[in-house]
Amino acid sequence: MRSDANTPSETREGVAVIGLGLMGQALAGAFLNAGHPTTVWNRTADKADALVDRGAVRAGTVAEAVAAAEVVVVCLSTYEVALELLEPLTGTLAGRTLVNLTSGSPEQARQTADWAAGHGIPYLDGAVMSIPIGVGQPEAVLLYSGPRALFDAHRATLAALGGGTTHLGEDFGLASLYDVALLGLMWSTMSGYVHAVALLGAEGVDARTFTPVGNRWLSTITGYLTEYAKQVDAGAYPADATLDIQVTTMEHVLHASRERGVNVELPTLIKTLAERAIAAGHGGSSFASLVEVMRKPA
Amino acid sequence: MRSDANTPSETREGVAVIGLGLMGQALAGAFLNAGHPTTVWNRTADKADALVDRGAVRAGTVAEAVAAAEVVVVCLSTYEVALELLEPLTGTLAGRTLVNLTSGSPEQARQTADWAAGHGIPYLDGAVMSIPIGVGQPEAVLLYSGPRALFDAHRATLAALGGGTTHLGEDFGLASLYDVALLGLMWSTMSGYVHAVALLGAEGVDARTFTPVGNRWLSTITGYLTEYAKQVDAGAYPADATLDIQVTTMEHVLHASRERGVNVELPTLIKTLAERAIAAGHGGSSFASLVEVMRKPA
Ligand SMILES: NC(=O)c1ccc[n+]([C@@H]2O[C@H](COP(=O)([O-])OP(=O)(O)OC[C@H]3O[C@@H](n4cnc5c(N)ncnc54)[C@H](OP(=O)(O)O)[C@@H]3O)[C@@H](O)[C@H]2O)c1
Ligand SMILES: NC(=O)c1ccc[n+]([C@@H]2O[C@H](COP(=O)([O-])OP(=O)(O)OC[C@H]3O[C@@H](n4cnc5c(N)ncnc54)[C@H](OP(=O)(O)O)[C@@H]3O)[C@@H](O)[C@H]2O)c1
Repeated sequence: MRSDANTPSETREGVAVIGLGLMGQALAGAFLNAGHPTTVWNRTADKADALVDRGAVRAGTVAEAVAAAEVVVVCLSTYEVALELLEPLTGTLAGRTLVNLTSGSPEQARQTADWAAGHGIPYLDGAVMSIPIGVGQPEAVLLYSGPRALFDAHRATLAALGGGTTHLGEDFGLASLYDVALLGLMWSTMSGYVHAVALLGAEGVDARTFTPVGNRWLSTITGYLTEYAKQVDAGAYPADATLDIQVTTMEHVLHASRERGVNVELPTLIKTLAERAIAAGHGGSSFASLVEVMRKPA
Repeated sequence: MRSDANTPSETREGVAVIGLGLMGQALAGAFLNAGHPTTVWNRTADKADALVDRGAVRAGTVAEAVAAAEVVVVCLSTYEVALELLEPLTGTLAGRTLVNLTSGSPEQARQTADWAAGHGIPYLDGAVMSIPIGVGQPEAVLLYSGPRALFDAHRATLAALGGGTTHLGEDFGLASLYDVALLGLMWSTMSGYVHAVALLGAEGVDARTFTPVGNRWLSTITGYLTEYAKQVDAGAYPADATLDIQVTTMEHVLHASRERGVNVELPTLIKTLAERAIAAGHGGSSFASLVEVMRKPA
């Protein structure tokens, strides 16, 4: 599945992938699928075997990998590991572009960008919002931050990793910041999902029966969030359904859960947060007003 | 906007809408838009005025409204109110179809179905998964439970209320059960959203800038949920990303939130639930294994 079959592979940028864990292997595989000359390195060398069978070049050292490519993609367990491996290679890296897809904090991303700038290394920080199997697919979202011009120069290469290849802004911390924010959103959504599934399961409804309805409903919710975004930015939360009314309905969720022996910790916390917004004067506001509760430690 | 402009209005079923609160007005408006002869009643009569201007017939009493229609749609604040109004009219209702879109518990839905059966009234229970402004749109989801044949007989009429008009099953409690489950999912998702927005807002990122990325991410998550549904039904949770690893990453969300003075109650609870799943032996499982935690009161 060559995603860019019209470009002869000689014109595609050479890439190196440093770190062939679950994610690094997927990244290297996507570059190979898109026809990029791909050099790979991993501490445990045999993780490169399958990629080499598919056409990747195995580098004997990190230095060799870096020297072989125009774009050096790093995906290791932590920023500390990444910096330890790259520190001796600043001279070679200065003529290339370093793209760091290791997960970390915005602070770590900014520190690494400072380090790269100090050595004249063109740098992009990124976050992979996908499981390995999704990498390279049209749906996969990969977020980047750092110089816009640098991103644009390598956009065609980075696009091999997913259809949702997005530049967020010049601030190097943005990709990591979005990463933690989106992961938080994911876990909240998934927690609500397993609660819903437990509730329906108590009455014998299969998860597979419920989930298409739940997924369609999530797509309805994205419409509400688009509206809430405007409200949050305006600091005003006009309501179709007021928090006062919603808190009453939350009681139905708690009641139905308790009746079936289903855990109520999640809906109880959400009701507490909503009541805190009401106590702060938001009884007549929409759910978006809970952003003000979220802005306070507790 | 006639949604079914090819059907001459004389062939469309006559409907009555009892209860013209925010939702009842939207329901009646959607029936009018679809060309149904629509009779309306509300305790506070002037809530019918705008609908009458658009072609609805005002009934002086509930009895008059019921007598005028083949399908009687009820949308009142509670089941108690609905039963109080309908109890004197069981004779007239027996020749028609009663569709109750009032929110309540599965138990109330089943009791009302028993009451209807006792009086020979064909009955469907339903739930409107939409805000009033969405009613009648292709995206609006309305859920029904009760006899499949009865739903099918009136499907074309009910479809006027939304493109997502769905029959869940014969058990009368299903629409209410899905309703509470979906609302719980909505609030969890929205809570995660306002947390994410607070986190990004702390670094000056507008909610409108973040939300398209968040919404795209939610659509990625629906893909994961489809996979989790199979795992839940199988009672086995093979992991791309194990709970052990995810709990470590949850620590990043907590850390990034604390650093910015953002509330951590929601991610803290989710981490506690995940740790409970790990303690029960699910460290190597996917997030879907939290359904087992959700099946226990606490
Ligand atoms: N997997 C996912 O679903 C996913 C999703 C989004 C983001 N990510 C992020 O992607 C990054 C990699 O994740 P992964 O899933 O690929 O993890 P993984 O399978 O555990 O791989 C970790 C990688 O780091 C290497 N490494 C660790 N310590 C090292 C050291 N001291 N020296 C040299 N190499 C070292 C490992 O080499 P060895 O093979 O020699 O141990 C391996 O290549 C992480 O930041 C993760 O958060 C992962
Ligand atoms: N609004 C939403 O976003 C939404 C979404 C999904 C489901 N629902 C459900 O739809 C139902 C109606 O909601 P709504 O938003 O339309 O509420 P609403 O605007 O408060 O309307 C309540 C309706 O009930 C009537 N009513 C209350 N007590 C009555 C009594 N003793 N006798 C006669 N009529 C009485 C009201 O009549 P008066 O006008 O005379 O007070 C009004 O027609 C509820 O079950 C709600 O949970 C609403």
